[in-house]
Amino acid sequence: MSAFVNIDAQRIPVALSHQPYEVVIGGEGLRGVGKELRRAGLKEGIKVLVVSNADVAEPYGDLCLQSLKESGFRPTLLVIEAGEDQKTPVSVALIHDAAYEAKLERGSLMVALGGGVVGDMTGFAAATWLRGISVVQLPTTLLAMVDAAIGGKTGVNHPGGKNLIGAFHQPRLVLIDPSTLKTLPEREFRAGMAEVIKYGVIGDSALFQLLEGIQELDTPSQLHQDLLEKILERSALAKSRVVSSDEREGGLRAILNYGHTFGHVVETLCGYGNWLHGEAVAIGMVAVGELAVLRQSWSRDDANRQKSLIAKAGLPIAWPKLDPEEVLYTLQGDKKVKDGKLRFVIPTGIGNVEIKNDVSREEIRKCLSELS
Amino acid sequence: MSAFVNIDAQRIPVALSHQPYEVVIGGEGLRGVGKELRRAGLKEGIKVLVVSNADVAEPYGDLCLQSLKESGFRPTLLVIEAGEDQKTPVSVALIHDAAYEAKLERGSLMVALGGGVVGDMTGFAAATWLRGISVVQLPTTLLAMVDAAIGGKTGVNHPGGKNLIGAFHQPRLVLIDPSTLKTLPEREFRAGMAEVIKYGVIGDSALFQLLEGIQELDTPSQLHQDLLEKILERSALAKSRVVSSDEREGGLRAILNYGHTFGHVVETLCGYGNWLHGEAVAIGMVAVGELAVLRQSWSRDDANRQKSLIAKAGLPIAWPKLDPEEVLYTLQGDKKVKDGKLRFVIPTGIGNVEIKNDVSREEIRKCLSELS
Repeated sequence: MSAFVNIDAQRIPVALSHQPYEVVIGGEGLRGVGKELRRAGLKEGIKVLVVSNADVAEPYGDLCLQSLKESGFRPTLLVIEAGEDQKTPVSVALIHDAAYEAKLERGSLMVALGGGVVGDMTGFAAATWLRGISVVQLPTTLLAMVDAAIGGKTGVNHPGGKNLIGAFHQPRLVLIDPSTLKTLPEREFRAGMAEVIKYGVIGDSALFQLLEGIQELDTPSQLHQDLLEKILERSALAKSRVVSSDEREGGLRAILNYGHTFGHVVETLCGYGNWLHGEAVAIGMVAVGELAVLRQSWSRDDANRQKSLIAKAGLPIAWPKLDPEEVLYTLQGDKKVKDGKLRFVIPTGIGNVEIKNDVSREEIRKCLSELS
Repeated sequence: MSAFVNIDAQRIPVALSHQPYEVVIGGEGLRGVGKELRRAGLKEGIKVLVVSNADVAEPYGDLCLQSLKESGFRPTLLVIEAGEDQKTPVSVALIHDAAYEAKLERGSLMVALGGGVVGDMTGFAAATWLRGISVVQLPTTLLAMVDAAIGGKTGVNHPGGKNLIGAFHQPRLVLIDPSTLKTLPEREFRAGMAEVIKYGVIGDSALFQLLEGIQELDTPSQLHQDLLEKILERSALAKSRVVSSDEREGGLRAILNYGHTFGHVVETLCGYGNWLHGEAVAIGMVAVGELAVLRQSWSRDDANRQKSLIAKAGLPIAWPKLDPEEVLYTLQGDKKVKDGKLRFVIPTGIGNVEIKNDVSREEIRKCLSELS
């Protein structure tokens, strides 16, 4: 194998019982995507529909297609618009039309080259074409690399809410080329770092400490390649561990929602688009950190360490001015509400969280008043 | 359990490793749907979106809703148009809108009350709402009872072809109420009988003989209830056996396509809507029966027995006037083509078939000339 694929790549297994796969970090990157697909068991000669958006296809589309051709695949490129506004069934229909034009068969493949929106839409299009064909994720944003591309959640938005339409459809391979982050806007890089910090808080105190030790966390251009790869590796490991033990979000996977419940409130009430998802999660983590202090679940010191790290990463920490009753109303409409009670992922220390179903409206009101 | 559910129901297990379920035939029928759902493990108090079309909802909608309410469920009824023309992503969006309005949660349920189109669309809507919620099939046409409702194939049409968009999504329960066949148009009943005959040829010679012994096969109103239930039971058993051993159509399940390859040609070249699906399959079985005689795979006598039974069921047997080259072209565009070779399910006797990938264009031409 070593002559076949660059040996420097990090390989994180996602150990699912039905169809395990690997998250590959580094190595030859997009230049080696063809070889990696062959290694993952995809057959020479099959048709591949690569879906991307203009900003990503422009620098990386040709590189990717050339690598696929060199390894004997028959690729076609589809460029679509991929803002959050386009994450709808209409875009999925465009991908299906391209799949039809390219005469994809059951043994064919779709490849998502881009950020979370491209990954979610392409994954869902693959899940629903010919009752499910294979998909490979090539994430090009930090958020997609550490979160969206791993774990098989695919889908699009419904006018009534984000990601209401979707399917679980695991990829055959996730290939992360860290060099694509060079073309990522800095604000998006920082937003992705919020999810990395999340992994530290929910289960990896060593990762948290690693991040605490990096001074240039808010300026990605200054971040050393080795440190970046280490961060990607620890994050992929964290996500992989949770997904492997709970593929379809029956239990443990809920801890990945740490910071997301309050974050969802911020996204909803401040208007989608004002805050990036990761920024809203950053604010949400600070908020639920405060809730945890109030509940005496963790110490003020831990909450402060979290807040400092989030601030150092160049992320927002201040809770916006919001009517507490509107916040409560929004929380109750959230998917995470179980049997009418408020459900939160509460930290008990750096590297440990618990899922709590017993958070009262009164506690939320008190927390919000502390935050404002 | 016996005090809880009518003991007269036939129960056919579909023995899937991940989520086995039952096909329940008879018993209290739709009047007992609530009890059957409870028996299948669905929890009291959950929301249920019942999807149906006007022709079916008018006689059976209230019955079904009342039974659900009596068993503690919270049902809503959505009536949609459900012709083959409506089997599109647009109709799925209507079901999703209703799911949103009804505030369905991950533990909620969709119920398909109707024929194959309602079942396929509702199953797909359930597969893709909140990344997959439970679905129960209540088929009201013979075709849906013996085929479409069992096995988890769901989906809608793409402008480029039937069922190109879809997902595998097994139901939690299939409940067959044979009394709903009383309101089914006779032509549709006969079309469903084509699939029943198919089960006889591909794997159940006793079923075939049973059908041969029924004189009133083409007049459903004359068919004795016990015979009808026997037919439904043998068909469900046949489908269940194949699905259990090959949930995702990797191998054995292909034998269910018996008669469908030529049938697909008839549907495509004669225009969808001229022939019902079952009628096209009937013509297709006669045609592939002839191909099998030419290949000396089965006897002229077997082919004649099949043709006689199909004719007795009031189904068409004559191959339409079609340009043989157009037929070949259509065959090659079919999903069932593997590596450019023509693939057919060929009978080797009443109750036995083989999947053959080596059928030549010349053999097809000869067969078509024999048929015309």
